[in-house]
Amino acid sequence: MTALPESPDFDVYPVRRAIADAQVDAPADGRAVAVTWDDGVSARYSVFWLRENAPDPETTHPETREQRLQLLEIPEDLRARAAWIDAAGALCVAWSTGEESRFHPGWLRAWTFEASDADPALPPRIAWEAGATAAPRFDGPKALSDEAEQARWLEALHVHGVAILEGLDATPEVIETVPRLIGPIRETNFGPVFDVRSKTGAAATSNAYTAMTLPVHVDLATREYVPGLQFLHCLQNDARGGDSILADGRLIAETLRARDPEAFDALTRWQMTFYNKARDSDYRFDAPMIELDDAGEVDAVRWSPWLRAPVRAPFEVVDALYRGMRALFQMGEDPAFQATTKLRSGDLLGFDNRRVLHGRTGFDPSTGGRWLRGCYVEREELWSRLRILRRHAREAEIRGARAA
Amino acid sequence: MTALPESPDFDVYPVRRAIADAQVDAPADGRAVAVTWDDGVSARYSVFWLRENAPDPETTHPETREQRLQLLEIPEDLRARAAWIDAAGALCVAWSTGEESRFHPGWLRAWTFEASDADPALPPRIAWEAGATAAPRFDGPKALSDEAEQARWLEALHVHGVAILEGLDATPEVIETVPRLIGPIRETNFGPVFDVRSKTGAAATSNAYTAMTLPVHVDLATREYVPGLQFLHCLQNDARGGDSILADGRLIAETLRARDPEAFDALTRWQMTFYNKARDSDYRFDAPMIELDDAGEVDAVRWSPWLRAPVRAPFEVVDALYRGMRALFQMGEDPAFQATTKLRSGDLLGFDNRRVLHGRTGFDPSTGGRWLRGCYVEREELWSRLRILRRHAREAEIRGARAA
Repeated sequence: MTALPESPDFDVYPVRRAIADAQVDAPADGRAVAVTWDDGVSARYSVFWLRENAPDPETTHPETREQRLQLLEIPEDLRARAAWIDAAGALCVAWSTGEESRFHPGWLRAWTFEASDADPALPPRIAWEAGATAAPRFDGPKALSDEAEQARWLEALHVHGVAILEGLDATPEVIETVPRLIGPIRETNFGPVFDVRSKTGAAATSNAYTAMTLPVHVDLATREYVPGLQFLHCLQNDARGGDSILADGRLIAETLRARDPEAFDALTRWQMTFYNKARDSDYRFDAPMIELDDAGEVDAVRWSPWLRAPVRAPFEVVDALYRGMRALFQMGEDPAFQATTKLRSGDLLGFDNRRVLHGRTGFDPSTGGRWLRGCYVEREELWSRLRILRRHAREAEIRGARAA
Repeated sequence: MTALPESPDFDVYPVRRAIADAQVDAPADGRAVAVTWDDGVSARYSVFWLRENAPDPETTHPETREQRLQLLEIPEDLRARAAWIDAAGALCVAWSTGEESRFHPGWLRAWTFEASDADPALPPRIAWEAGATAAPRFDGPKALSDEAEQARWLEALHVHGVAILEGLDATPEVIETVPRLIGPIRETNFGPVFDVRSKTGAAATSNAYTAMTLPVHVDLATREYVPGLQFLHCLQNDARGGDSILADGRLIAETLRARDPEAFDALTRWQMTFYNKARDSDYRFDAPMIELDDAGEVDAVRWSPWLRAPVRAPFEVVDALYRGMRALFQMGEDPAFQATTKLRSGDLLGFDNRRVLHGRTGFDPSTGGRWLRGCYVEREELWSRLRILRRHAREAEIRGARAA
C-alpha cells in the first residue's frame, strides 16, 4: 500500500477523519477542488492554496520545509484537471501544468478553514480572583529535565497567567538560564537582567528599589511592545513583609465592563500616552489602557498608575476616562482581586506582564534581606515552546501506537 | 518677579503662547478650569487632569519626576475654587482641599488636547521609489561623537525608513556597539547578533546563508512583535554581485490600494498565519499582511513570501487574498520600486524592518568574500533617542537665548 505523503511542515497530524469524496469544482473552470469528509464537513480549496502547500520536494524544501516554489512561479491561470482519493487516503490533484500533487488528509483537515480549531497547544485563559490557585506551584528541578512537567508549568503560565517553579538553586545565574528554556531574554534599558533589592538615597532610581509598598502595576507600559512575560527569581526573602501581590488585570477590566460600560468603552477606545520620565530616555506610546482581542475580550491592560502623560481627549471623554481609571485602581487595591504569596528562596515566579498585575507589601529591611532577580521574555516564545512540547508528546503517542 | 514653575517632566517647554484668561468653569460645580490663550484657542481642563499633573514636589517627585500622588489620593469630589494667572504667566488654581497648584504655560499648551500637535520629534514618514535618496548616507565617525549628525542620521532612518552610516571600522564588534547608541539589541532565536555569509551544505539553515538571490522580505514576520529596526554592518563585500535591494513596503501597499481596493481591503482585514517551520521552534502569529495605523494609513507589512501557513479564510475571500499577495510580490520584484545599493566595507545599513523590504542580488563567492553582521533594535528605542536629541538641542537653544 502506498504511504501517505509527508506534511509540508514539521508538525504531526494524526488522521482522525477520512476524505469521503473529492472533485474538481466546477470542472468547467477548474479553479477549486471540493472535498467532503466522512463526518459530513465539506470544503472548497482554491488551486493556489493547494498548489503552494503541496509537500513534494520541489514545492517544499525537504530539509527546511520552507516554501521553495514562490507564489509568482505558479501560473495565474492554473487549473485542476482531476481530483481523487488514492489507496492511502491522500487527496490527489492533477494540474493543468501536467504536474500532480498529493496531500496528507490529517494535515488537510487541520488547516481547513471550515473545520479547524483554535491553536490546540494554547488552551483558553482562565480568570482568577484571590486564592491559592492563582499561583500554581511546580517542581523546579523536575521541570528542567522532564518535558511533561515542563509542559504543565508552561501551560499554567499561559492559562492562569502566573506560575511558580519551586526548589531551584538560590544562585544569581538561575535567572539567566531557566527562562531561556522558553526563549531569548528581552533586554531593556534596565539591562538583560535586573536586581530588585532595597537601596537607599540616590541609588533608588525606581520605587521598586525601595522597601515601600508597591501598588500593583504592569512593567514598561510605556513601550510599544510591553514585555509579555516577567520572571522574578527569589534569592533571599527573610525580611518581615515583602509578600508578592498578584491580580488578574483581565478579570478586573471585565468587571469594569459589567459595572460601568461607558467608562470601560472609553478606556478601550481612547488612547492615552504612556510616558516614562527620565533624563536619558523618553519612551511614549499611545494606546488604550484596555486592549481587546479580535473576539472583543480583554487581552491586555496597560496598568500604569504613575507612568502616564496628561490624558489627551475631548473634555467630555476625560471624565469617563478618569472614572474608569479610578474604578480599576480601586479594584486593584481590593483584596478580593489580590492573590498574595510570599516567595521563598529558590522560587521562580513567572507571569504574563500584560495581563497579571504585580506589586508587593512593604517590608522591614532591618529584619532580614530581600533580593529578587528579574528578566523579561516574550509571550510568543512561550507559545512556540508549548507547541514544540505538544509536538514531542504527539510524536511519542504515535510511536507508542505503532509499537502497540 | 516670580519664576515659572517647573514642568512635571524632564522635557523643555518654550513659552510660545501666553494665557490670556483663566476661570473656574462652571463656578457652581467647580469641576473644570477654562483657559483662553492669546491666539484665541480655548480649552477646558478637568480638575483630576490638572491636580494629578501639578509639578509641586508632593505631587511629582522632584528627582524622578514620576507621579508621587496616586490618583486615588485625590478626593473624588475635588473642586477648583479659583483660577487666575500670576505675574510670571503661570496658571494658578486654588482647590477645595485648601491646596494651590501652579502650572507652566509652555507645558500646559503642549499637552492641551485642543491645540497639541503630533509628537514633534517624529516628523511624518516619506514614501520613496527607486533612486539614490532611498538610502541617504551619513558620516559614521561623526555621528558617534556629534549629536547633530546623529540626529540627522536617526531622523532619516525614521522618515525614509532607511539610512546608511559610512566610514565605520570594519570590525566584528561594531554591530554590538553602534546600534546600542539607540537602545538595547533585541535578541532572537538567531542570537543577539547574526552573521550573513555564504555557507554550504547543511550549515545553510536559511536562504540568507547561501549565495542565492534573496527576494525582498521582512525578517521574522512570524512574530507577534516583528523586529522594528534591522542593522546590517558590512565587513567585506568583494564578490561580484551581492547588491542590497530595498523597497518601500508602505508605498507598494498604498499602490495596491489604488489599483485593487478589494484585494487591499482583504489583506488589511483578514488575518493570515505567519508561521516558521523548524524542528526546534514553532512561531505562529495571526495578523493581516497589511497593518493600518489609526489614521487608516499603511503602517507595516508582514511581507513573508515563504514563511506563511495555509491561508484560513472563507473560499470567497481566498481569491482576493491571493490576488493581492501576487500583486504585492510582483511590485516587490519591479525595479521601479527597488533601490539597489552596494554596501562597502565599514557601512552600517539600518532600516525599518516592518516597513522597508530588503533582499539582495545573487553573488559569485569565487570572486571574493561577502560578510555582513546583523542585529535588531526596537523602533521605540529610536523614537526615544530622537526625543532625547531634540531635548538636548532645545536646552542648548534656551541656554543660547539666555546668554544672548
